[in-house]
Amino acid sequence: MANVGVLGAGSWGTALSLLLHDNGHQVTVWSISEEEVKMLSEKREYEAKLPGVKLPRELVFTSNLEEALTGRDFLVLAVPSPFTRETARKMSPYIKEGQIIVDVAKGIEETTLMTLSQQIEQEIPQADVAVLSGPSHAEEVGRGLPTTCVIGAKTEKTAKYLQSMFISRVFRVYISHDILGIELGGSLKNVIALAAGIADGMGYGDNTKAALITRGIAEIARLGVKMGGKIETFTGLSGIGDLIVTCASVHSRNRKAGYLMGQGKTMEEAMKEVNMVVEGVYSAKAAAKLAEKYQVSMPIVEQVNKVLFEGKNPAEAVDELMLREVKSEH
Amino acid sequence: MANVGVLGAGSWGTALSLLLHDNGHQVTVWSISEEEVKMLSEKREYEAKLPGVKLPRELVFTSNLEEALTGRDFLVLAVPSPFTRETARKMSPYIKEGQIIVDVAKGIEETTLMTLSQQIEQEIPQADVAVLSGPSHAEEVGRGLPTTCVIGAKTEKTAKYLQSMFISRVFRVYISHDILGIELGGSLKNVIALAAGIADGMGYGDNTKAALITRGIAEIARLGVKMGGKIETFTGLSGIGDLIVTCASVHSRNRKAGYLMGQGKTMEEAMKEVNMVVEGVYSAKAAAKLAEKYQVSMPIVEQVNKVLFEGKNPAEAVDELMLREVKSEH
Repeated sequence: MANVGVLGAGSWGTALSLLLHDNGHQVTVWSISEEEVKMLSEKREYEAKLPGVKLPRELVFTSNLEEALTGRDFLVLAVPSPFTRETARKMSPYIKEGQIIVDVAKGIEETTLMTLSQQIEQEIPQADVAVLSGPSHAEEVGRGLPTTCVIGAKTEKTAKYLQSMFISRVFRVYISHDILGIELGGSLKNVIALAAGIADGMGYGDNTKAALITRGIAEIARLGVKMGGKIETFTGLSGIGDLIVTCASVHSRNRKAGYLMGQGKTMEEAMKEVNMVVEGVYSAKAAAKLAEKYQVSMPIVEQVNKVLFEGKNPAEAVDELMLREVKSEH
Repeated sequence: MANVGVLGAGSWGTALSLLLHDNGHQVTVWSISEEEVKMLSEKREYEAKLPGVKLPRELVFTSNLEEALTGRDFLVLAVPSPFTRETARKMSPYIKEGQIIVDVAKGIEETTLMTLSQQIEQEIPQADVAVLSGPSHAEEVGRGLPTTCVIGAKTEKTAKYLQSMFISRVFRVYISHDILGIELGGSLKNVIALAAGIADGMGYGDNTKAALITRGIAEIARLGVKMGGKIETFTGLSGIGDLIVTCASVHSRNRKAGYLMGQGKTMEEAMKEVNMVVEGVYSAKAAAKLAEKYQVSMPIVEQVNKVLFEGKNPAEAVDELMLREVKSEH
């Protein structure tokens, strides 16, 4: 049994806390919101985010950061990406040398183009930072539906340790050394999910969506490999796997936002209606900057940016993708 | 303008005939069924297979094989895989040296383990055989929804010629040399689609399905590369792309048959209810034989075979896949 601190009580943090608890670990969950801590401690269910998922009495909720961090075997960082750096900075004074921290959020900082693990390492240089990613909607993990993930860590020792902590009968965990590839796949997929949503909203079919997913992972992989990631990561669970689930799923807010735009709404109207962080809108800008920096052709990312920020008509964007100079597939 | 003969008036043959006609070519469509030829000539719509898709007067339908084959610039072979060899044998006397034939069906002959293009070449050695594959439900191509495909041919000249014949504003065509990889991806995907359908029928979610798709293409690629296919083909449109569309789509009968089995029906009951050729049931056996012949581990294919032919409980099969000895992802 391990003693675990989970930072962030959103749907993913909560679902993973339940999984770790079911695996026999002692779990303390921190949220910045005292209100949220009070609600979860009393109700033992997050009705707004994980309806129907009962949270056992043994899960401890706290808004005291020091309490959540002290004496833990490992930490899970599950705050949304815009808050990762700030949270890591506040955590740093309480983090001992070699403390394992698993980041489970995804994103790229627009100004620095750094991934989340890179930001965490900058703020907490004494930590041993790992990542967990894969096709894993929190709603389904919370309900115990069979799910697969990848854990990326710098040493095999840390990877195997974390694997043994998370693995269960319904949660199959693979390990990898390619932290960067895992993070890039997880972050950039949201841009393609926006494109897939737009196509859906325009009334296009499964053929179009499958084309966007397949060509989408190809351009993500092109960039990722140039940045130092491994091609196998992009064709694996945290790459194409996560992209498939995001583009197909009714749970995805990125797809939903795209859908609304495909139906003629502006980006602002779509984001208002989705009413949650639409990660892909931020990642789209970062992806375009990375494509330029590394001199990689990313036609889908380019068209998504034009639709998002230049008011380009989605139908024209799809037309342009279909009519690009045709070459061999690879 | 080219003069084209299309063999087979099923949904895919008909949809491609319409596409080629819309591209300005003269198209003659052959069916073995005189009844079908009469119905299509009169009604100009295949209500049972492509409802709502109007077939223009210029499309010629015939049950005379010699007429369909004589004086054509290229031929499209669109008969279901169990009839490919027999049809090719009957075609052979009318086929001139170097005649281009594009096969658009998918399958592996269970007794010989040969792909369709290999069978056609055996029966018509004088032909220049190419293939067309990708995420392309006929129902959507018939309605003009944006679609991508790959054409595989032995020479770049043939590949580019066919590309120029099929390409349109809504049908983007890539070219490739990897005929074998294209055919293996297209045939073996149906086994994974059965598995995905079973998971859906059991009430599992998008996480499980994405895992099956991602791990599924990994095992198909493992086999395909050992057989001489190229890894990029399996991560491309005719590999993962086609697999995604087949596993996600309401149009897929393989997925549907799996779904019914996931809900507790036997294979026989499921096939009866789907009432069409469920290609994956045949491919499952061929895949298992290939896995043995080439000494490749294919755990999903193995479990699908057990469910199909040994009456194994689907829940146990999924459990076994989730609990296999866990290793690194690649």
